Amino acid sequence: MQPDQLVKQIAFIKEIDKLKYIQRKTKLFNSDRNENDAEHSWHLAMMTIVLAQHSNTPIDVLKVLKMVLIHDIVEIDAGDTFIYDTQKSHDNTDEERLAAERIFGLLPTEQAAEFIAIWEEFEESKTDEAKFARSMDRLEPLLQNVSNNGGTWQEFSVDYAKVYEKKKAIQNGSATIWQYAEQLLNDSVDRGILKK
Amino acid sequence: MQPDQLVKQIAFIKEIDKLKYIQRKTKLFNSDRNENDAEHSWHLAMMTIVLAQHSNTPIDVLKVLKMVLIHDIVEIDAGDTFIYDTQKSHDNTDEERLAAERIFGLLPTEQAAEFIAIWEEFEESKTDEAKFARSMDRLEPLLQNVSNNGGTWQEFSVDYAKVYEKKKAIQNGSATIWQYAEQLLNDSVDRGILKK
Repeated sequence: MQPDQLVKQIAFIKEIDKLKYIQRKTKLFNSDRNENDAEHSWHLAMMTIVLAQHSNTPIDVLKVLKMVLIHDIVEIDAGDTFIYDTQKSHDNTDEERLAAERIFGLLPTEQAAEFIAIWEEFEESKTDEAKFARSMDRLEPLLQNVSNNGGTWQEFSVDYAKVYEKKKAIQNGSATIWQYAEQLLNDSVDRGILKK
Repeated sequence: MQPDQLVKQIAFIKEIDKLKYIQRKTKLFNSDRNENDAEHSWHLAMMTIVLAQHSNTPIDVLKVLKMVLIHDIVEIDAGDTFIYDTQKSHDNTDEERLAAERIFGLLPTEQAAEFIAIWEEFEESKTDEAKFARSMDRLEPLLQNVSNNGGTWQEFSVDYAKVYEKKKAIQNGSATIWQYAEQLLNDSVDRGILKK
């Protein structure tokens, strides 16, 4: 370890504080306050340690935690894209790639490469760990919207078919959790907080 | 897995959303806004994955992550105690123990026991993992106060000796990080943002 490695790491730790200012569209449970990306990332990490047993396959929980903790850091530069935004794709954009290079690039070279690789693995959603991380990322706002009488579904007139299309990725991580989530979607239609 | 295990886990996941409302005394980097416990916990988790290599001993990073992610959850019931509070001890109080039992008790029995044990391990600060987690918990507000021209040191007139007494626990987790932190404290005295 060179002392300047620690200096670079501290610079990164200060920079990522900005994630606390990135507002999401979804609101806290039973609240009118928007959630920010740091709170969201913490919640996904908690969900990961609580729900990992339901993964379809055995997973490296430490790797999933790294994924969910860092997955939104690129939004410090690129901003949050609403999942139901029809104008702007939610996929790994050039803007997000530049952000990853700049922000993770503050870290020592090897660590920067590791973090970029973890972020890319999450974005590609192909490995078991990435699929489980993605299922957590899809589940949290669903729980929030159910708790908030429809939340962003109501606010932005998003219907069942669109929600289902995004949420079905949960099954790639966990069939058990998907079964639960699908039931929640059906109940939401019955309660009139999600339009069919 | 019984389906009612998942129901209990979801109830816990909803309950801990309240951590986002628990305000700390310290402020975000370069900001006037107070940090909340969920943001703080996310930041400690990020610091853990970035800085784990500097631990005095090899550590189980997954366990440290669990510790820092859950360490403040008891504050949902017990509230945040300012580290330099002279009236109220920051140690594991009866109030915090009751909170741990109620909140972690929402989880399925085995998982509740696991989370309570991890929280207790953190509070006791005896294992290598707990010492490293504690060093992260001590480092973050130090970095914030340095970035905020003295932050809570200035606001609550806390002097060098008191700060040093609390921060020296960093060396139990990492001699390298402590060397860096001690230098920051000395620089802060030189800059006039920490009174000797």
